[in-house]
This record gives sequence, C-alpha cells and structure tokens, in this order.
Amino acid sequence: MAGYFFSFEGPDGAGKTTIIQLVEKFLTEQGFEVISTREPGGIEIAEKIRAVILNPEHKSMDARTEALLYAAARRQHLVERVVPALNEGKIVLCDRFIDSSLAYQGFARGLGIDEVLAINEFAINGCMPSLTVYFDLDPKIGLERINKNKLREINRLDMESFSFHYKVREGYLQLVKRFKDRIIQVDANRTIDEVFEETAKIIMQRIQS
Amino acid sequence: MAGYFFSFEGPDGAGKTTIIQLVEKFLTEQGFEVISTREPGGIEIAEKIRAVILNPEHKSMDARTEALLYAAARRQHLVERVVPALNEGKIVLCDRFIDSSLAYQGFARGLGIDEVLAINEFAINGCMPSLTVYFDLDPKIGLERINKNKLREINRLDMESFSFHYKVREGYLQLVKRFKDRIIQVDANRTIDEVFEETAKIIMQRIQS
Repeated sequence: MAGYFFSFEGPDGAGKTTIIQLVEKFLTEQGFEVISTREPGGIEIAEKIRAVILNPEHKSMDARTEALLYAAARRQHLVERVVPALNEGKIVLCDRFIDSSLAYQGFARGLGIDEVLAINEFAINGCMPSLTVYFDLDPKIGLERINKNKLREINRLDMESFSFHYKVREGYLQLVKRFKDRIIQVDANRTIDEVFEETAKIIMQRIQS
Repeated sequence: MAGYFFSFEGPDGAGKTTIIQLVEKFLTEQGFEVISTREPGGIEIAEKIRAVILNPEHKSMDARTEALLYAAARRQHLVERVVPALNEGKIVLCDRFIDSSLAYQGFARGLGIDEVLAINEFAINGCMPSLTVYFDLDPKIGLERINKNKLREINRLDMESFSFHYKVREGYLQLVKRFKDRIIQVDANRTIDEVFEETAKIIMQRIQS
C-alpha cells in the first residue's frame, strides 16, 4: 500500500478531533491527499454493528460479545474506507483504532490486552497504523474540558467512576511501553497550538523517514 | 459446571437435527435434564447479529467481518443459553458450534483454521464441548437427501459448487485428527436408527466415564 495510516488515541477532552482537523489541513497544504475518518464512519455494515452495540435495550450484552462486535465493525470500516484510500496513496488519519479496544476493553474492563489484541489482529490482518499518536491527559482535566466547553453531551462512559478513566490511562501507558516503535506519546495538557505543532512534527518525520 | 456440553457437526442432510431429537428423547428417558439448542436460538442479541450476517443487502460483507460476527453471536448464545443450563446440571445438545466456523470459514473459505480458532477461543473462553459428534457424509449424498425429502428450501450455501462442500468435509476431517480427544467421527451414510444407536452409545460412555 502506497499511503500512510496514522491513528490518534487518548481520552475524550484531549483534543483529538480538533488536532486531527488541523493535521488534515496542514498535510493538505503540504500537497498530500488526506482523509480523516473514525469508526463506523458511515460504512453501512459497520453502522449496523455499532447500532447493535449501542442499543440501550441490550443490557445482557456480554463484554466479550461487545469486543468481538467492535472488532467486526473495525474490520468492515478498514476494508471499505481505510484500505482503498491507502491504495490510492492517500494519508489516512483515524480517530481511535485498535488501541482504544486494548485500553478500554482489554485493560480497563479486564478482558486482557493479549486476548483483545488477538481478535483485533484477526480483524486488521496486518493493516496496523504505521504511527499512532497518543494524547496523554489526566482524565479529570479531559472531563473538565468537556464540561466547560460543552463539547457534547456527557454520556454513560463519562459518568463511569474516575477510577475507570484512570485505568484506561494506565492501559494506554502500558501500550506506549509495549509498542514503542509505533505509539508516540504527546502531552495533551498544553494549548491546542502546542499539541498540534508537536503532532505535525512527529507525522512529518514519519512521512519523510 | 455440573452439566455436559455436547455439540453435533456435519453437512446438512447428514441427519443432525433428527439425531439430536432422538438423543434428547433418549437421555430424558434415562432421567437426565436435557436441552437442545442451536445458534442464535432466539437469544435477542445473537438474533440481531445473525440478521446483520444474513442481510442480503450486505454484499460488501468481508469474510473476516462475518467470522467475527459469528463468534460474537456464539458468545452471546453461550452465556445466555448454554452456560446457565450447564450450571443447572443439564445436558446441552448444540446443533453446530465452533467446528462449523473452523471447517466452513477457517478451512473452506481459506481464512485459516488457527486464525478462526483464535477468535472463537476468545468467544467461548474455555467453555468447549466435552464431546463433539461429527456426522461424516459424502456432501453429494447429503444434498440428494435434502432434495428428495424436501427437508427445506435449497439455499445459497447448498448451491455452492461441489468443490466447496468437499472442502468443508476435508476441513472437518482435519479437525477430527487435530482434536481427537474431543471429536468422534460417526459414519452418517447409514439408516437413522444405526446412526442414532452409535451416537447414543458414544454419549452415554462420555457421561459415565
């Protein structure tokens, strides 16, 4: 595949969406063809799977069923959206990817990072991002930002105890150590400009290397 | 878990459904509490997942997405139907289980038996049948029986080339060799009475051992 596949991870409130928009604009100005996406991304089959996951009536949903459904939606979004763009030589910026499943379900929910990695390796079949930027932030600051800026409605996940959000962060930090060649940690407790500047630099280095 | 978990495999037309009914009747007469089931088995979440798989509009469904969805439906049926029955000390007879995915998707569709096994091991999390009866039959004879007895409408899978059905059988035969402690092969090219008698004997031996 000719293009570059970058994913972006971190808690809500870390600025992922804004930074991705800025990176997309920046890379486009540099002359690259860029798409930004996030699962399920309007891909019909992935949307249908996501609807099964999020249906509030599905209270008996088992954690492993949920992890398999996320992996299935990931697969379909990957083959219908990401891979075709990469084959056209485009840069793909993906808001959350495999590491979200590893941090939230594998580590914080206790299914096991290796176990959740196994089903996701089946799903992505070798199409791993060449680089993942992890925006590290104290979860408390992230939630305060969401509240203050009314970025969106507070949802069920926000309301989880702080200990859960700290566990997710601990999971991400383990992933940074384990996949040091792929995941680069960026301190998100700074201004958007500062975080963008560092992110753009990291991405340009990877493209030019 | 107190109960016994038995699964039944083999091509359509091998007599699985009839034999399972006879085994259920026989074991009940022996004083056992028995349930027979098959995925998705009326379990709401599993039914919804199966509907996504079977939706004829989903022509772009990737083979790996499909395999993950089957594993997800399997998980939910297992935790909502099979495990509670086993915990109550019942005998569970399951029409098709993990080996169908391994033979059809892993082997015949070429995803790889080990790859499909990995996601299914995640799904079942150790709850493997203590015994699997594989009804071996020349696929041609199976299809002839379906046709002759008008057992049901011929479906898309029946219409696959014979080479596909022979591949599925080859897959099953590999599984029999690989999992010799778990899978017992029964020659299904005999009368229902003969096949039932051998199956009942195998199951009683496992219960009494």
